[in-house]
Amino acid sequence: MVIDGLGGLPHPETGKTELETASTPNLDQLATKGICGLTDPVSPGITPGSSPGHLALFGYNPVSFDIGRGVLEAIGIDFDLQTDDVAARGNFCTVDEAGLVIDRRAGRIATEKCTELCRLLDGVVIERVKLIVCPVREHRFVVTFRGEGLSPDVSDSDPQQIGVAPGVITALRPEAGRMADIANQFVAQAKVALAKHYPANMILLRGFSEFPQLPTMGEIYKLKPAAIASYPMYRGLAKLAGMEILKTGTSIEDEFMTLKQNYANYDFFFLHIKGTDSAGEDGDFDRKVRIIEEIDSALASLIGMEPDVIVVTGDHSTPALLKGHSWHPVPILLYSKWCRRDRVNEFSESACISGGLGRFPAVQIMPLAMANALKLNKFGA
Amino acid sequence: MVIDGLGGLPHPETGKTELETASTPNLDQLATKGICGLTDPVSPGITPGSSPGHLALFGYNPVSFDIGRGVLEAIGIDFDLQTDDVAARGNFCTVDEAGLVIDRRAGRIATEKCTELCRLLDGVVIERVKLIVCPVREHRFVVTFRGEGLSPDVSDSDPQQIGVAPGVITALRPEAGRMADIANQFVAQAKVALAKHYPANMILLRGFSEFPQLPTMGEIYKLKPAAIASYPMYRGLAKLAGMEILKTGTSIEDEFMTLKQNYANYDFFFLHIKGTDSAGEDGDFDRKVRIIEEIDSALASLIGMEPDVIVVTGDHSTPALLKGHSWHPVPILLYSKWCRRDRVNEFSESACISGGLGRFPAVQIMPLAMANALKLNKFGA
Repeated sequence: MVIDGLGGLPHPETGKTELETASTPNLDQLATKGICGLTDPVSPGITPGSSPGHLALFGYNPVSFDIGRGVLEAIGIDFDLQTDDVAARGNFCTVDEAGLVIDRRAGRIATEKCTELCRLLDGVVIERVKLIVCPVREHRFVVTFRGEGLSPDVSDSDPQQIGVAPGVITALRPEAGRMADIANQFVAQAKVALAKHYPANMILLRGFSEFPQLPTMGEIYKLKPAAIASYPMYRGLAKLAGMEILKTGTSIEDEFMTLKQNYANYDFFFLHIKGTDSAGEDGDFDRKVRIIEEIDSALASLIGMEPDVIVVTGDHSTPALLKGHSWHPVPILLYSKWCRRDRVNEFSESACISGGLGRFPAVQIMPLAMANALKLNKFGA
Repeated sequence: MVIDGLGGLPHPETGKTELETASTPNLDQLATKGICGLTDPVSPGITPGSSPGHLALFGYNPVSFDIGRGVLEAIGIDFDLQTDDVAARGNFCTVDEAGLVIDRRAGRIATEKCTELCRLLDGVVIERVKLIVCPVREHRFVVTFRGEGLSPDVSDSDPQQIGVAPGVITALRPEAGRMADIANQFVAQAKVALAKHYPANMILLRGFSEFPQLPTMGEIYKLKPAAIASYPMYRGLAKLAGMEILKTGTSIEDEFMTLKQNYANYDFFFLHIKGTDSAGEDGDFDRKVRIIEEIDSALASLIGMEPDVIVVTGDHSTPALLKGHSWHPVPILLYSKWCRRDRVNEFSESACISGGLGRFPAVQIMPLAMANALKLNKFGA
């Protein structure tokens, strides 16, 4: 169970974090029977994005497995990216008469306007390659190139600064020449199509990337894994790891219900709860507390199903005080019949410091969970 | 703030280490407001020299960045080593009539004698390469080769044992042939010049090395860093990391005064205090305690300047009981507004075990300090 952005910082008035403020009888009971600790998703001091945070939880080294920006945006909108597709993140932007970028975000146009402009560009075919253009939010869109002989190894057109012209997209490897050419043709056509849509009169592309071929959790762990997540981005990340994506609703209750209904059909579940992170990002300490309490209530049903191993943690910390992801290590709780319980009897940042798991890289959670399920063989004779 | 050789071992009578014996109200207050832990400079069980200990603190992997012995000796005497210089550590030694080494240290001749003999060898020019010979202490000296076409890739002449002849210096790579030739000529000339100076009638050279090109802290962290250290070796190590070296006096008070005077001009300070290590090396438990107390008093002025982040630690442990560097992990204290304080309320080896930073490699201190200054971007989307 991944409580997104779980870790926090103490409220200046009470000296207690969000997790310490919340009343969490079920989590505390699980901590008492289980073993606790703190994890670093990437490494100490490094603030992880959602993608590296989750890859580490799924057992992939988040520095070796770098997911391109284009792919992330595509999976973030639940777009069904195919194996040979190349996706790029796009911005509608503003250029002046000389063609220099004067606003990389076109004044953050409304999502409705973005949707309208995407419809203008969508479906173009260039040299037998089909371009699929989907809106994301405000000025953001994703363009997917679908066809033969493509390559993600091309440069960005987004100069990441204003006062200069958008860059010409160039091949970073000889084989990518055709791809660069098609991408440049698309940019040129977009410029013409957008000419009268000031301030959104141009586009910038970056992060050309392909759906990465990760070894699946099925291959690595011989598991049949399923994902329950109400936000598309996390479903996409789970799909990268080879999990089956289960249909679910938007509430925490919905997610736990989905778990219950599918419990017999899989031997690994990734259950993702987004609300804590959103509350943290909004700087809403109290809402984060309430959502943690809601999770704690729902947890009773999970405990009732008596899984061999329960792991509760986060993909990173999102302290309400910092209104964003942070580098602080993330509390983790592991329960199994064989976990060698420690003396921790509450699930909190402070208590986890003294936990039996110590402080360790999040990428080691999966082997630990597998061991606690008695699913790993001895190494060496 | 690096308290050299900070970590200690308990006094057999009191059961308390040097740091635990010292009265340190300021450090304890900082520990209460901050977060504590223990670091391994190189890795558990490995006793670090001053060079790897400091490189780790500055954020360089001390195993990857190996500083040659010749370079270390040169910077240890404040010698202004140039980019293309090659430096070697020298010993005056004793050879018998057959030319076999019978004392690798020439009976540890007095430093005055060493200085006199260095003058004899200094300034020689061989094939347009100038040799600069500087005394260090007792039988030790540094020879610097300055000229074109040099290379550090040559073998030692020091056989590191007695009863054998000094080795012929050989090229370890084809390009180093000229260097080996010049070094051998120097050894031959030295043998003639020293013939009548028994027991110092020969020299041994080892650790040929060049000033290493480390990426600077300015490049890596976009900091403007300055170093305050009263001992040349530490100024030299700071220079390797690209720090500006500030003129300072010899007392702890002098160093803190230098910090105060330069506080506005830099955004990172390395403040090094040597006395604790020297006391530890001398086996002087009480003196180490007194110096820690002196540091604690001076600390008030640092706290008063309200830096974003304060890190107090050591480069390694030097327990008075062992009279030397040791492998024991080093207490660390980090204070910032965003540090997520733990329950530790004193700065000591015992208390740091339960600290929120846990036990971690010293090379991770810099990223952690940078994060606490809110100076790092998120990794991945």
